[in-house]
Formats: sequence, structure tokens, C-alpha cells
Amino acid sequence: MDRYLVISSDGHAGLPAAEYREYVDPEFRAAFDAALPIQIAMTKEAEKRFLVGDINAEWRKGREYELTGAWDPTARDKVLDADGVAAEVLFPDGITEMNAPPFGAGFSMGSEGVTADLQWAGCRAHNRWMAEFVQTAPERRIGLACIPLLWDIDLAVEGITWAKENGLGGIILPPMWGSFPGYHDFRYDPVWAACQEMDMPIHFHSGPSPATDYFGAGGLAGGDAIPPGAVGAYVTEVHIWLTRPLTFMLWGGAFERFPKLKVSMTEGTAIWVPEYLALLEQRYAETPYSQKMGDFRSHLSMSPADYFRRNVRIGASCMPRREAELRHEIGVEQIMWGTDYPHPEGSWPNTIEQRYDTFRDLPEDEIEAMVGGNAAAFYGLDTEKLAPIVARIGPERASFGNGGGPA
Amino acid sequence: MDRYLVISSDGHAGLPAAEYREYVDPEFRAAFDAALPIQIAMTKEAEKRFLVGDINAEWRKGREYELTGAWDPTARDKVLDADGVAAEVLFPDGITEMNAPPFGAGFSMGSEGVTADLQWAGCRAHNRWMAEFVQTAPERRIGLACIPLLWDIDLAVEGITWAKENGLGGIILPPMWGSFPGYHDFRYDPVWAACQEMDMPIHFHSGPSPATDYFGAGGLAGGDAIPPGAVGAYVTEVHIWLTRPLTFMLWGGAFERFPKLKVSMTEGTAIWVPEYLALLEQRYAETPYSQKMGDFRSHLSMSPADYFRRNVRIGASCMPRREAELRHEIGVEQIMWGTDYPHPEGSWPNTIEQRYDTFRDLPEDEIEAMVGGNAAAFYGLDTEKLAPIVARIGPERASFGNGGGPA
Repeated sequence: MDRYLVISSDGHAGLPAAEYREYVDPEFRAAFDAALPIQIAMTKEAEKRFLVGDINAEWRKGREYELTGAWDPTARDKVLDADGVAAEVLFPDGITEMNAPPFGAGFSMGSEGVTADLQWAGCRAHNRWMAEFVQTAPERRIGLACIPLLWDIDLAVEGITWAKENGLGGIILPPMWGSFPGYHDFRYDPVWAACQEMDMPIHFHSGPSPATDYFGAGGLAGGDAIPPGAVGAYVTEVHIWLTRPLTFMLWGGAFERFPKLKVSMTEGTAIWVPEYLALLEQRYAETPYSQKMGDFRSHLSMSPADYFRRNVRIGASCMPRREAELRHEIGVEQIMWGTDYPHPEGSWPNTIEQRYDTFRDLPEDEIEAMVGGNAAAFYGLDTEKLAPIVARIGPERASFGNGGGPA
Repeated sequence: MDRYLVISSDGHAGLPAAEYREYVDPEFRAAFDAALPIQIAMTKEAEKRFLVGDINAEWRKGREYELTGAWDPTARDKVLDADGVAAEVLFPDGITEMNAPPFGAGFSMGSEGVTADLQWAGCRAHNRWMAEFVQTAPERRIGLACIPLLWDIDLAVEGITWAKENGLGGIILPPMWGSFPGYHDFRYDPVWAACQEMDMPIHFHSGPSPATDYFGAGGLAGGDAIPPGAVGAYVTEVHIWLTRPLTFMLWGGAFERFPKLKVSMTEGTAIWVPEYLALLEQRYAETPYSQKMGDFRSHLSMSPADYFRRNVRIGASCMPRREAELRHEIGVEQIMWGTDYPHPEGSWPNTIEQRYDTFRDLPEDEIEAMVGGNAAAFYGLDTEKLAPIVARIGPERASFGNGGGPA
């Protein structure tokens, strides 16, 4: 094949907030109707205060049709085709933060200010819609189910089973656990077991944070102007909140007990990976520093960095050239390129140029792995079914230069 | 001079818990008497559960006299002399965690489960004792005052003024701020102003963490066995809790408004520095990633990484060879070597061998800076006064090899 199979590890899809209504269980529709105007007002307030509505509005201008790809399959496939993307992973939150599912469902699933019943209702609504959306082009869409596992482990396993049976390709878990036990706790083993058994990769997506630390008591939608420094501190630390659940799973032995468990860390950049692995190795090694803390390694048969290499992949949205240059330190097998469409920080509508800038002149087998091969293996895709799409819209191998770039 | 001036950026000193009584304001002595047995029981429980009492007891055996250097000036100076250390910075918590000051004073100064009055009383007690201790050899001892600034800014400024007037050489601030505003908030400006004006460097010391995240509801002194993975996650993340206050100060513009403010980050290793600086640079640069968050840079005249280079130093306790090899990425001017005496993870009683392993064969001017020159400048020490001590006990330059080591 003279074209690359390209898979985006990070796409976003979701209904405009009001349209989730029909997907919500009937008994929660009254609550939905009450919560909707509040959710919309808070989103607007946050956009005004934090997300800079003007910039977003400007960016969206003239792209109205393509942005409806957040929920419209025809519009979406046009964008995918133009970007040369054969298949993609689908997270919630279609157009930036405007299409969040109801009741705090999404990729944050914070455990404060919401009840388990409501959050589950919001997740079920989104998961139902997502399952329908996937069926509009099942070979191209890897839909993810939102699973707020903190509240009830059995319910989480049920949710994962439902997702598998309804054609979804993986799950999203809350990256922060509030006052619940962290992901080193063995209480989550039934969830890890279900994911391993059904081959459902787990996803943590960057973004959530303890917002009050940065933005004051009101969080993102708080009243006054953003305190100077808040956004800088947030963007410097955002990958921390992404990596914490993985750190706890690695040290707790989740991948020791469930060696085929898969985790993707999405849109947190990949720049932190080499130092993170070095740190895990250092902390796993016997050092005077850790000696006084007793034996904390005997339940692991290998270093946390080894589990990382075996079980973890990076959803490398908006991947810059620098990360391509660091690919051997990060791990070529770890990297799954992605677009983040239709978010404004994503590569669309400049995907082709940005992808060229990132990968130009690298060895073909490495480009092949990073733009799609790794993701196809991770999600167990049927590449035969994708072949006709690749033949039609995949980017030509020759378009990435001469293979003589930096080793 | 054929000997190096050696300054340890990290020493610990403090009374056995019961002996703080006479330093506590009379009106808090009844509370002290009530709290003491609880504090001792919790320390023992934590050592049993977490710090592995047996290992510590074994390590302490045969070193009983040298360990009294935690509070005894004669014993301390013998250890300093043997280690070739002319002067040192003094944090609280003498022998591991056995000598914490009362009422949650120390280098954690957590804001939960304690009142402002009590925590301040504990800090005043420790600061009084430390001021006395410094006077036993003022040229050799850079004593630090504990300043729990969160509760009351004016009280913090008073405390810093008292510390300066009483011969202390810097302050320790709580690295975590609980539900108080973070260190990007302008409310702390009077504290930064006082530190700049009185030339009192600020210290954050590694160790404190949101312990319940790792160890469950009881924290360090909680009931049952430590959950597998808890210690691994803690040692992997501990530098995060150290760097957070600095991240907030950098982005908030503390060093923009107070360009001579000094901060030392102690015992958090230095391995995170190159990647941290790269991250600050990346986040400061205009990127599509941050564009949707508006302008969060206009209150800064340079990159946070530039403030770091100018205003921040690393207290590099137990510095391994790898960090010496990375010294140009970390910054030779940033590194202030330290022993962590008398903690078991410190270099003592193998300081001479460890220091040789770390610095052997490096260029003399770089060794000179890292083992003492940088600290002498940072703390404004009178090196004339130290010269006779150096002549007597300083390590010979020739003992560090031929200067032909890795550039």
C-alpha cells in the first residue's frame, strides 16, 4: 500500500447540551430540565472568564458546517476524509466545552457537587448516543463509554459490559478520585479484570484539575477576573492530574495482576514521558532515599517503567515536531498520533500541514506505527475493513519526504 | 586556598518533642501537655507503619552520640568537622521525624486539624530554640524560621522580622496551602516584600503530601497495613508537592514584582529541573494549546524559566552522580549540595565518600560553586569568618581527582 493507515487517537463528539434529553432515562428528565439552563450558564460564564469566548467565536467563524461534525456523521466523515483519517477514537465534549454530557458526565466525572445516580444517568445518556453514533460508520469510529467507577464497582463492571455489547471500543475513567481510594486500591480489581477480559482499553484524558486551586472558590465559572498566574500554573500542571491515576495503577500492581490491561493517556503531550520513566526506574531501584520506607516493591515482578512500556500508550494529540524527535526516548510503540478535532487547540483545519511538519523525513516504518499502526494494534481494529478507506483518502507515503530525517 | 569551602544546604535540627515545653508561650503549655503524648504516639505509629522502625533503629545503633547533634552543638560540630562542612542550613525535624516541633509546626505546616493560634505557638517555640542554637556558632549555622503564613499575612511579616532580628537566616513556608489561595495570589505580596527587603531566602522542603491520597483516611498514622503501591506512588510524586508553590509563584509574578526574592527548593532531587524548565518555556511560548485560554503572560516581562534561573536555587541533598552529570542542564549556579544530616537517607556517615563519588574529576570552579560557593552567595555569608574553619576542616581540592572528568 502506498498510503498510510491513519488513525486519530483523540477526537471529540457529543450532542449540543439540550439534545441529550431524549437519551436520559425518563426518571431523570425533570432533573435534566432543571439542570440544563444552569449548565449552559456555567459554560458561558467559564468561556467568558477563562476560555475567551471572542477567540473561540473568531476561530469558529466560517467553520460552522465542519463543527457540526461533533454530532453529525456526514459532516464528520467529510472532515476525516479531508484530513486523511481512516478511523478515530471518540471522547465526549464535541465543540470545545460546549457539548458536555449532562450531570457532570464527560472525561472529568468529578465526584463533588453531584450524586452517583445523576452522574450515572448523564453517562448512560452519552454512552447511548455514542453507541448510535458509532453505528453510522462502525469501522471508522472507536467510541468510548464514560464510566464513573468511583461510586460503585459492580455498576462500573455492568457499564463496561453494556459498552462492549453495544459496539463501543473502550472506556474513560475519572482521572481524579476526590475522597475515594486511589487507583492503587485493590477494590478496583473487578474493573481491571473486566477491561482485560473484554479487551476494553482504559482512557484518561487531560483537562480536569482541582480548579479551585487555580481559579479560586468558584472554580472555572467563578465570579471575578481570573487571578494572574492561574492559567500559567494550570497549563504547567495539567499533565500532573493526567498522570496521577496511572502512577497509582502502576505502583499498585494493576498491570502485574492484569497483564493485558491497556491504558491510553490522551492529550497530555508526550514530553513528560522520558523523565517520568526515568523517575519510575529511579524510585523502583534501591536507594538510600527510599530505604526508610520499607519494602514497597515486592508485589511487583518488574519496574513500573516496564509495565508502562508494555501496557500504556500515549494519545499524542497535536503532536509537535519536538516529540517526534524524542520518539525513541518516549517509545515509538507508545505514540498514537491524534487530531483533537473539533477542538480549537487541535490540528484541524491544518492537519495535513501539521502532520507533515511533525513526521517529515522520518523512517517509513516509524511513521506508519505512530500515525496509525500502534492504534490499530491497541484497539484490535480490522485493517482489512479499513483498507478501502485508506486507498481512497489515506495520505501518500511519498508525501512525507525522503526518510532521511533525524534518526 | 587549597581547600573547598563546603556548605550543606540541608541539615535538620530540633529538640526531642518533650523539651520544646519551655520554649512554648506559657498560655499554650497546658495544650502542649495534652498534645505531647498524642504527637509521640502518632509518630511511633507512623514509624511502625511507614518508616519501618526496625530499619531506623538498626541504622541509629552505635551512632547515638552523633545523633544528639540534632540539638547538641558540641556533638553537631564534631560531625560537621568530620564531614568537612564549614556551615549549614538548619531545617526542623532533627532525627528523622522524631523531633518535630509541637502543634504541626515544622516544614509541612498543614492547615487542617490545627488552629492558627496553636500552629503559630509551635512555630514560635521552634524559632526561639533555633535562634539560641544558631548563637552557639553563628558563623556556621543558617537557622530557618517556620512561618505559617497562610493564616494571617501581617503576623507572617512580624514573624519574619523577628527571625531576622534574632539572627536567623531564612524562612520555611508551607508547601501546601489547603483551602487558602495559592501562592500566585497577590495577598502574599507583603511577605515577598519583607523577604526581599530583609534578604531572607524562602525555603520549601520536600516531604509533605496529601497523605490520605496514598495512605487512606488515617494518613501516615492510619490503622492497618500500608496499601501496596502507596509508598511507590508517594515517592514518585513527592517532588510534585514540592514544586507546586514555586510554579504558582513563578506564574503569579512574585519574582517580577520582587526581583531580588530568593527561593530554595530543598531535598526534592534536582532531576526534575531540566524538564520543568523546558515545560515552563513551552507553556510560556505561544502555542495553539494555550491560545484558547487568553493572554496569561502579559503581567510577566520574561519567561518563568528565566525567573527560575535568576531567583531559585536547589538544595541538592544526597546529590547523586547523575545530577552532577546533568549539572549544565540543571544549572551549575542553581545547585547547592547538602547532607541531610542527621536523617537516615542523608549522606552522613558516608559524606566524604558520597561527595567524592558525586563530584570526582569535575572542573574545580564548578565543584567550588556547587559544594559551597553558590550557597555562600545565596545566604550572603561572611566567608572571611569561615576561612579559619575551612583551613582546619575543609576537604582538599586535590582529593576530588584530576579535573578531567565529564564536561
